[in-house]
Order: sequence, then structure tokens, then C-alpha cells
Amino acid sequence: MDSVYKHIDAHADEYVTRLGEVIAIPSVSGDASMRDHVFAMGAWLQAQLKRLGFSDIEAHHPGKQQLQGKEIDLPPVILASYKSGTEKPTVLVYGHYDVQPALKEDGWKYEPFTMVEEKETGRIYGRGSTDDKAPIISWLWVVEAYQALGKDLPVNLIVCFEGMEESGSEGLDEIIIKEAGRYFKDVDCVCISDNYWLGTEKPCLTYGLRGVSYFFLEISGPAKDLHSGVFGGTVHEPLTDLFHIMSKLVSSDGKILIPGIYDDVALVTEAEESLYQNLDFSLADIHNATESQTTIHASVRDTLMHRWRFPSLSLHGIEGAFYAPGAKTVIPAKVVGKFSIRSVPNQTPERIAELVKTFVDAEFSKLGSKNTYKIESPHGGKSWVADVNSWNFVAAKKAVEKVFNTSPDLTREGGSIPVTLTFQEALGKSVLLLPMGRSDDGAHSTNEKIDRYNYIEGIKLLATYLEEVATVEK
Amino acid sequence: MDSVYKHIDAHADEYVTRLGEVIAIPSVSGDASMRDHVFAMGAWLQAQLKRLGFSDIEAHHPGKQQLQGKEIDLPPVILASYKSGTEKPTVLVYGHYDVQPALKEDGWKYEPFTMVEEKETGRIYGRGSTDDKAPIISWLWVVEAYQALGKDLPVNLIVCFEGMEESGSEGLDEIIIKEAGRYFKDVDCVCISDNYWLGTEKPCLTYGLRGVSYFFLEISGPAKDLHSGVFGGTVHEPLTDLFHIMSKLVSSDGKILIPGIYDDVALVTEAEESLYQNLDFSLADIHNATESQTTIHASVRDTLMHRWRFPSLSLHGIEGAFYAPGAKTVIPAKVVGKFSIRSVPNQTPERIAELVKTFVDAEFSKLGSKNTYKIESPHGGKSWVADVNSWNFVAAKKAVEKVFNTSPDLTREGGSIPVTLTFQEALGKSVLLLPMGRSDDGAHSTNEKIDRYNYIEGIKLLATYLEEVATVEK
Ligand SMILES: [Zn+2]
Ligand SMILES: [Zn+2]
Ligand SMILES: [Zn+2]
Ligand SMILES: [Zn+2]
Repeated sequence: MDSVYKHIDAHADEYVTRLGEVIAIPSVSGDASMRDHVFAMGAWLQAQLKRLGFSDIEAHHPGKQQLQGKEIDLPPVILASYKSGTEKPTVLVYGHYDVQPALKEDGWKYEPFTMVEEKETGRIYGRGSTDDKAPIISWLWVVEAYQALGKDLPVNLIVCFEGMEESGSEGLDEIIIKEAGRYFKDVDCVCISDNYWLGTEKPCLTYGLRGVSYFFLEISGPAKDLHSGVFGGTVHEPLTDLFHIMSKLVSSDGKILIPGIYDDVALVTEAEESLYQNLDFSLADIHNATESQTTIHASVRDTLMHRWRFPSLSLHGIEGAFYAPGAKTVIPAKVVGKFSIRSVPNQTPERIAELVKTFVDAEFSKLGSKNTYKIESPHGGKSWVADVNSWNFVAAKKAVEKVFNTSPDLTREGGSIPVTLTFQEALGKSVLLLPMGRSDDGAHSTNEKIDRYNYIEGIKLLATYLEEVATVEK
Repeated sequence: MDSVYKHIDAHADEYVTRLGEVIAIPSVSGDASMRDHVFAMGAWLQAQLKRLGFSDIEAHHPGKQQLQGKEIDLPPVILASYKSGTEKPTVLVYGHYDVQPALKEDGWKYEPFTMVEEKETGRIYGRGSTDDKAPIISWLWVVEAYQALGKDLPVNLIVCFEGMEESGSEGLDEIIIKEAGRYFKDVDCVCISDNYWLGTEKPCLTYGLRGVSYFFLEISGPAKDLHSGVFGGTVHEPLTDLFHIMSKLVSSDGKILIPGIYDDVALVTEAEESLYQNLDFSLADIHNATESQTTIHASVRDTLMHRWRFPSLSLHGIEGAFYAPGAKTVIPAKVVGKFSIRSVPNQTPERIAELVKTFVDAEFSKLGSKNTYKIESPHGGKSWVADVNSWNFVAAKKAVEKVFNTSPDLTREGGSIPVTLTFQEALGKSVLLLPMGRSDDGAHSTNEKIDRYNYIEGIKLLATYLEEVATVEK
């Protein structure tokens, strides 16, 4: 690998310049007026794939969408293959080429769509720098390095780049499911580089994600909003009932109060327990992130276990009640409470919905209210956990050790990355989350950055990962 | 009085025509672009007062206000005197010449600012018909009738007409307080005609209003909104704490759960109990008004006592939480819960605020939360109750009996009419609420109307009330 590392180091400035090129394409998927730029970014990638000799380049168009009152085309899901030999394993890599919105006046210190490298800090600023432009183009520079060195790529590579990740990945799942038996039929493992190190010092591999079940609890009484002077004290008020029910779901210290909800939660094994040693994380990280000292748990282990592998329930708000500044003495006629449960193995969305409904039904009966209620759970995203001893993870672990001279943290995420589960279920192969950036990169926030170190060592990491996948015992 | 009644009946069509004239002036005080019309309505009244020989006509200008981004002049509070003799009692009458907004497309069957009289139903439609244009101009027709008949008015009359009642009566209190010892110094009693019969069949006199204390309960944790995937289960969530506290304030059946809150509530006396017999009201009225069957109490007595003379607590909503349609998995950083308490004699806003704060403090402590809270109660409007045996009420009762051949219901209102208390406190004289319209007039709603019967008999009622005030034993 030494020659590859040397090549990468020698071309580091070029990689940074090219990152500047893609940051300058404001491929914001959530803004109809920017849609042309998303397409431009897709075209840029296709040109690069062509230049590098990828074959079977296919742009899958998922159709149209309604956005901000316009009907516009969805950007393509780009598939491409780099074939290196039928005897070699096939690695599918996923990334997204769209970005979050960004405006200088939101608090950016530089123009968000102009790359700025701070030499003194080593930080490269720009929207999309870490999420997810550096990771996706890095795969290209790996292929380019092997070509330049006259070496065969150790694996067959398939890329899957989408342009709608920041806006719900519209159309992606259908394409993955359709292509599972065709374009993706030889895939042996999947690697997604679209999350972050746990801290700022140490690389990690991510092996788990929580699921999410969303609930709408609607309570109705009068046919229209009432004046509290005229009706207060004489009618059952839907908002009063809603506060009663929703207050019974979770305690201030985060304990879910729905009977049976913890029954399906997998027990913490000894092997799992050991993964919580020496993590690159301290409570100060969460205090800095929230700018408060309002953490519930006193240890890193407990805090991360409650983020990663125990369920949580958050109340989000109410539709139909008074929400503006000032004082208004309305009795709302119909209110919809919103809450969600982050789920973990071995909970299922179906069982969670059942338990929530049973509980809400029982609590509503206790109120003795003449109002009526309805509870709906539109969709439940399942949790995901991978076997950290599978060869895909072993290969990645070895790659980290080679490039960074340290063992990676093995982490989970508290949120969901739905495409992970789609790949897992559609292909039935091991999926690995291999992050490139750091926890303080500010993806989705102002002053998004990636450190030059993370970017350049990240390219080496991806190359080494492919080498290890080729040689690891399967 | 027969000659007065005859004159009124003979001129009924003329009174209706003139009502049409004032309905056609869209004096909406809540819309900056309509402010000229409010002034036009004030000018119309001043011209009438002049024509009828009122003296000391004064237009008090309270200054300017900011409305919809414009700085505009507040409409005048108009004072005028009709002197009939120093030995006669002086009656101060109040009304307002501004109206609520109205648009045909809101669901009006006729143009809201064009009067339409339905001959078959006897209803006169138009914005402001019942609230409060018919009542205020009726006082003018009483004076006009006495003049036409060559009779002296039995009392000295002072009118106080404002143009900002529908928009918070800005500037009015200061003027009343300032004029208490000057313009209003000889006032013996006050009569306000700006509310409605309890039902649709029987006139009423109104002797009580509830007060209102508004509360803002703010709970803060993190410095910014958090993602529930990343932070759910690891931090104390302000919204969870808010639901816990607010759910403890009131039960589904309207019982306020704050210890001590009922201690100052006046006991129901036997005399008061008797006022709840034979009221023109049934539970069907409240079911029709709310288009639901969600009433708490089974009897008219209990229902009206809880509207009029017991306190109630309503939750209104939350500022800072998610309120839009759809699903969003935010943990709000800072939320402000809004609720209000309708108060009754002998509760005071000060004592209510104290009890609420003590309770919230105790409940917040129990949570064991690291979040912080703040509770504010910006202003408390006091409740008001009059002595129904005072001569002002006796005079009005006799007047109703003469005009309608029935005894009036003695009612309260669950809401507040703040000017009532201002007059009471600034002048120290008996204040009477003497409604003209019916409960189904739709003030503030679409298709506002007044029945021709209520308008014309109402003019007779006001005239008779003045006669009775002059002769009643004081
Ligand atoms: Zn991303
Ligand atoms: Zn993102
Ligand atoms: Zn009014
Ligand atoms: Zn009004």
C-alpha cells in the first residue's frame, strides 16, 4: 500500500482543489430553485466516472416531485461499475451528492458555497464538505490512484450515488429493491461513508442505528375553537386531555412509561459491554453540543447506551393549539399531539405501535372525557445492528489500524440512516458505516467543514479497506 | 311612556334605515387600512350629537399605535352631554363604534357591510348590527324622540363612545380615570349595552363578569433545538417537563388542581341560588353552540355556575414546539406553555398568581429535572359583580317588565368586559350591563344580525330605563 499512500499524499492539493470544485456546485435538494445545480452535480460525477473508465454508467430517474408549488424532476440515482476481475469480491459503495441549504447570513464565517481552507487549523470549510461530498469523491480518487500506479483495483467496485438524501431519498428504495437481483446481484458487501467519528480524535466503525416510530394522537371535542371565557369550565377541553395522556408517556429522566415497552429490548452482553470502554467521548462533548448541562446520565457508558441501544421517547409538539407569541384565550377544538419513539433491537414497529395504542386507550378511558381520540402511526423505521465480527467489519478495522495506528471505536448512531436497512434487507449482505469526518464537522449546520487530515487520510482509509476486503478471511 | 313608544313605533323604519347607514361604514379597528372608516364613523356620531343638541362634545385622541407595520392615529373617544336639569340624576352610557373584520368569503350570505333585512325572519344582517352599532345609536333615537314630543329627558345623559373596543380599547382606561373627577364627576350610574341575552326569548340584566389571569410557563434546557435521534434518552427535554407540569393544573372534568385555588371563591347564597331558576337556557344551547355533546355538567344550574361564578382553567397551547402538519423529530430547546384562569369573586389576581407559582415550583422540583423554568403572569383582569338590588338594577328590571311584560333573567358572563371594572373603580358608581341583542346574533362571527324586534323594543327599553332611573327610590 505504500505506493498508494505516497500517490495520495503527492496529490493531496489536487484532491482539495477538486473538493472546492464540487462545493461550488450548490446542489441543495430541498429548494426547487436550486434543482438545476443538483443535476449539474450529478453530471459532474458521471463525467468523472466516465473519465475513470467506469462501465455500465446508468442514471436512474425516479420521476417527478412537487416542491414549493412546482412540479420538478427528481435528480438521478447514479450507478456505475468498476470491474477488476470476476474472482474478486464486489463492494457496493453508497453516498449522496445533494446538500443541505446554506446562507451566509445564517452565521457562516465564509461564503458557504466557496471552499475556504484555513491553513492554521487545517479545516476546509464549505457546505457539503463533510456531508457528503468529500466521501463520495474520495472513492473516485482511490480508483484514479490505482490507475496512475498501473495497479489493478483489489475488488470490483459498484457506486450508488443519490441526489435526494437530504430530502427524504425520494425514489431510492424502489431502485435498490429493483436492482437487487440485477445491477447489485454480485455484491458481497456494502460500505456507506455518510456519518461521523464519535469524537474528534479517533476513527470509528458504526454497527448500529436506532429505528423510529412516529405517533399522531388526535383529540376532538367541539366542532370549532371556543372562547375560554364563555366555555371554560363547562366543556371537556381536548387540549387538557392531550396534556394528560402525553404527560404519562415518559418521565423527565427519559424513562418510557408505557408498560411492556422494554420487554423486547436486547440484553447488554458482556461482549457488547466491552465496546463501551475507551470510547473517544466524554460528557463534555454532549454539554458542548447542547450548550447546557442537562444530561440525564452520569457516565459515558450510560449516556451512550441510552443514545444507541435503549429506546427513547420524545414529545415534539401539538398541531391545532395556540403556538404564536402573546396571549390568546382560545379553547382549541381539535389538537394533534406528536411524539416519537426511537427503537432498538429486538423491538419491532408493529409491537411498539400496539403497546402505545393499548396504553393510550387505557389512559384515555381513565379520564372520563366525552371527547374522542384517534391515534395513528404512519410509518415505523426499524432499527439496524450489524455483526461487528463479520469480515466486512474485520477488514475495515484492519484498514483503520493500518492508516491511523489505532483501533477504531465501534459505535452506533441514535438516529436512523434508512438506506442502511434497505441495502441490508434488499441484498442480504453485510453493511458497514465507515465515516470520514469528525463529530464537530457541523453537517447540516453553519460553518460545515472537514479537516484536511480526515479527507486525505480518509482516501487512504477507503483504499486500504478495499485491499483488506480482498484479502480478509471470509 | 305611551307617547314615546308610539313615536318609536312610528319611526321604526327610519331607525332601520339609519342602522343601514352606519353598517355601511366599515369601521374595523383591527385593520390599519380601514382606520379612515373608523374615524368616519366617529365623525358621523359627532354630527348626530351636534344635531340633537348635545353639549360639551369632546373628541379625546389617545395618540398613535403601531399596526401592521404602520404608525397610525388611534380613533377618538367621544364624550358628549345632554343636560336636562341639575336636580335630575346623571346616567353615563358607554358603547363602541368600531367593529370586527368581516369578508363575504368567510361565509356571509350577504355583503357584510351592506345591511339586509329579511322580512320573513325579521332579522337585520350586517357587521356591527348588534355589536355595537344598534345599541349606541339607539341612545340617540331616545333623545330625538323626547325632543320631537317636546318632553324633557328624565335624566342628564353623558355618552362615552370609543372606536377601539375590538382591538383592546387602547387608551380608554387612561381617559376614564382622568375624566372621573371632571367630565364624569356628576355621574350617578353607568349603563353599558354591549352584551347579549342569555338565550333568544327573554331579556336579561347582567351583574357579573369573570376575571382572567394569563400565565406563561417557560422551560429551557439546551441552547438550541436538538435532534431526537442523537439526543433522545440522554438529556432532560423541556417539552416533557412542560407536559408534566401543565397536565397537573386541571382535570378533564374542569376541576382546577392547584391547592387553595377555591379557598377565596364566594359561597353560593340562597338568594343567588334563586337567580338560577327559570333561566332562558338549556343544555341544547351549549350543544348547538359547540356542535358537540361534550358538556361536563348535567344541569343548567351547574353548567351556568361553572361558566359564571366558579373559576376555570384552560390550556391554550405551546410556543416553541413543533406545531405544523406532518412529522418532525425535533427536541425543542425552549418551550412556553400558555394557560389562563378565569377568576371570580373573591379571588384576586395577586393571590391566584401566588398559588400558581407555588404549585408550579413544587411540581417542577418533583420532576428532578436539570432544565430551568420561569413563570410569568403579565396582567390579571379582576372579576366584577354588581348588587342586583341596587337602584340601577331595580330601575332596569322595571323597564324590562314594562316593555317586555316579563321579568329579566339576571345573568353573568364567563368572559370579561374590562371597561366595566374601570368604570366601577374609577367612578365608584353602580354599573349595569343592559343587553339589546340575542345570544344567537353572531357578534364576531359570520352573518351577524340583530332582530328588528330587539332593536325597536330595545330603543323603548333604553327610554324606559332612563324614566325608571329618574323615579326609582335611591
Ligand atoms: Zn449525509
Ligand atoms: Zn446530511
Ligand atoms: Zn361589543
Ligand atoms: Zn365585539
